[in-house]
Amino acid sequence: MSGPLKVGIVGLGTVGQGVVRVLQKNAAAIAARAGRAIVVTDVSVRNAAASRDCSLAGIRVHATPEAVVAADVDVICELIGGTDLANDLILAALAGGKSVVTANKALIAEKGNALIADAQARGLSLSFEAAVAGGIPIIKVLREGLTANAIDSLAGIINGTSNYILTQMTVKGQSFADALKDAQKLGYAEADPTFDVEGIDAAHKLTILASIAFGTPLNFAAVATEGLSKVQAQDIQLARELGYRIKSLGIAKRSEQGVELRVHPTLVPDDHLLAKTDGALNAVRVHGNAVGQTVYVGRGAGGEPTASAVIADLVDIARLNGARPVVPALGFTAAALAAQPTPFPILGIEEIESAYYLRLTVADEPGVLRALTTILADADISVEAILQKEPEDHEDARIAIITSVVSGSRFDAALERIRALPFVRADISRLRVEHFE
Amino acid sequence: MSGPLKVGIVGLGTVGQGVVRVLQKNAAAIAARAGRAIVVTDVSVRNAAASRDCSLAGIRVHATPEAVVAADVDVICELIGGTDLANDLILAALAGGKSVVTANKALIAEKGNALIADAQARGLSLSFEAAVAGGIPIIKVLREGLTANAIDSLAGIINGTSNYILTQMTVKGQSFADALKDAQKLGYAEADPTFDVEGIDAAHKLTILASIAFGTPLNFAAVATEGLSKVQAQDIQLARELGYRIKSLGIAKRSEQGVELRVHPTLVPDDHLLAKTDGALNAVRVHGNAVGQTVYVGRGAGGEPTASAVIADLVDIARLNGARPVVPALGFTAAALAAQPTPFPILGIEEIESAYYLRLTVADEPGVLRALTTILADADISVEAILQKEPEDHEDARIAIITSVVSGSRFDAALERIRALPFVRADISRLRVEHFE
Repeated sequence: MSGPLKVGIVGLGTVGQGVVRVLQKNAAAIAARAGRAIVVTDVSVRNAAASRDCSLAGIRVHATPEAVVAADVDVICELIGGTDLANDLILAALAGGKSVVTANKALIAEKGNALIADAQARGLSLSFEAAVAGGIPIIKVLREGLTANAIDSLAGIINGTSNYILTQMTVKGQSFADALKDAQKLGYAEADPTFDVEGIDAAHKLTILASIAFGTPLNFAAVATEGLSKVQAQDIQLARELGYRIKSLGIAKRSEQGVELRVHPTLVPDDHLLAKTDGALNAVRVHGNAVGQTVYVGRGAGGEPTASAVIADLVDIARLNGARPVVPALGFTAAALAAQPTPFPILGIEEIESAYYLRLTVADEPGVLRALTTILADADISVEAILQKEPEDHEDARIAIITSVVSGSRFDAALERIRALPFVRADISRLRVEHFE
Repeated sequence: MSGPLKVGIVGLGTVGQGVVRVLQKNAAAIAARAGRAIVVTDVSVRNAAASRDCSLAGIRVHATPEAVVAADVDVICELIGGTDLANDLILAALAGGKSVVTANKALIAEKGNALIADAQARGLSLSFEAAVAGGIPIIKVLREGLTANAIDSLAGIINGTSNYILTQMTVKGQSFADALKDAQKLGYAEADPTFDVEGIDAAHKLTILASIAFGTPLNFAAVATEGLSKVQAQDIQLARELGYRIKSLGIAKRSEQGVELRVHPTLVPDDHLLAKTDGALNAVRVHGNAVGQTVYVGRGAGGEPTASAVIADLVDIARLNGARPVVPALGFTAAALAAQPTPFPILGIEEIESAYYLRLTVADEPGVLRALTTILADADISVEAILQKEPEDHEDARIAIITSVVSGSRFDAALERIRALPFVRADISRLRVEHFE
């Protein structure tokens, strides 16, 4: 057994404390797997007096992240978040000959190509299992477990906050606003929830997953996002009656035409595992052309689940014993990534094909359905399911439709014609539907 | 990029043909991930004239497995099965400096300790991702993805035949015998179904998973198994009414007292993902003390799903470029495995604690429930749920009980007293119940 792997942690928040705690409590099992001990020797903290849920005995505590990066350690764990200072710290660590483990999805999604190239040129590891889906080892699965496959598509519940809010709306019939307020009270949502509920956090994670799945450079700007706030309690109810659950999914598909990347509330058939993944859980479905469908479920956040992923990366590095990494950071060799067309063909959201859910409120008049279905038929859009309900409190009727698969532009053109019908009220809901084999 | 990894395949059945086919159709993506091409150069076949679902163009076809092992290849894929010839072939391949990939669960479970030690001493890979759960990369997940954790327990649907039969019994209300016949007609079950329906195949797989999860040597003899044939259609129905599905699970747990290893039909709460894994799918639940519960679902058998796992092992080997393996075959270092007590403490089935499902047919007389509940209370066994049904066709009543968690020996002692009651009929069903957090 070689000497211990010395680890410096930059940022001692929930995840950083989890890493310290898990490395301590599972030290024997981790060393027995890694072939050497993994020991945190240096940390930086913003407030030395803050109370913490881990012991810092024997650990040098620094006031600045730079001091940790300069310390005598083998690996830096970057756990401060953000995309500026974190970027500088990682570059400095790599320049100093230190491998890096990070949980920073925004940084990897937005600046990962350059960082990975830098680490690769230096023969060092830059690992980020914890950046996506918390404790689920989904990056290792894609990068090493499913390497036989051309990955056709992946779809994931990869933002626990959104899933918690949608689950509450489904179970309690709450409005989005009320469910969000509850999530904030319970600490599941930030005071400014934009990153989570507008799909930006999920878009960061999807960027990383898609790159590893398809062998394309990281391209965060290409992800189309729609937020949760457009989902109404009545849509959740109507979707259930039609046999669906509404989930916020990150979806990536690859076809002859290019890659599509999107995050939006999605109707999922209620017998699919993704539909059954509730609360703060994460789940990722991957479809490969050899393995078929596989699904991975676990906790997507929290100190120790995320620490589980950070430490798995540390064990990978410890096992290398100073040798160059064996597995490319994005699963494909740098040469293969460089050989991709630039820019890589990404489908615009208007080109993407999907089925749709459309909910309309209409005056209860004769000829309404005929007018609607004529417009859809003219656009070559089939009605796969339809449900008409008469609300108790007024004279209007609600109609929910599930359509056949159609391009976004064709659907939206038909929707404009529907919107212009005199008996159609302003409150229209239009969501995408995904069917999985 | 180095030269191609040359692969010899011993045994060109469904999986072997799948490996050839997937390596051909996904050659570009696989090379882009592995950093070099992976090429099948030699195969052995029993019947050269047999029709096959893959092209052998450019591949040397040998009449004996020994000829493939002696050929100029880097890796041998052992896909003939069995535990004698396969063992000799693998030892010969290793002695010849060739790494080995195998899908042979029986061989690894029964003779893996010696084979792994041999490969390790020679600095070669012996990989067996395909031995468990087909295309689900569960071995990589345990060996590399969850290395931060002390694994408390795992439970899996790891025999597709059993799961198919139980699913048919549940959905169609079929008897075990009828469901088995249908499974045989469809090719899901062998003419002699013993290995699958008596839990032996699952025990082989559980042996491997438990070893990697807990860091203990492979110990197939320690697995307690109960087959499916004892499950009656009425038990499936009663379990459903009590809120459970019956699944054949492989279960491994580690506690202070030792390790428990068992395969048996099990009542699973019907809101758990394992209860929702139907048909020929596999699913494995792993609980770690940092990550909590994670679940992995996918196809457990079939040519291409299994080939997906075989090729993932080949990519791992190709990426090493001739260097010694970085990851120990069983996840823990040889030194750590050797440091375990011998024999490792394994709990006997009578010591294992679980909840129970008990179904009795009793004469419809006063005092029956009092007599039953008195025996259970005397044994300090609580009744968690009870359901009494009056069958339409005769005067007896059926009673189904879910008990609290109790040791096997204590439960069986109470059951003997119940069996001796004059009003209890001979047809008694006793199954274990697992609750997952």
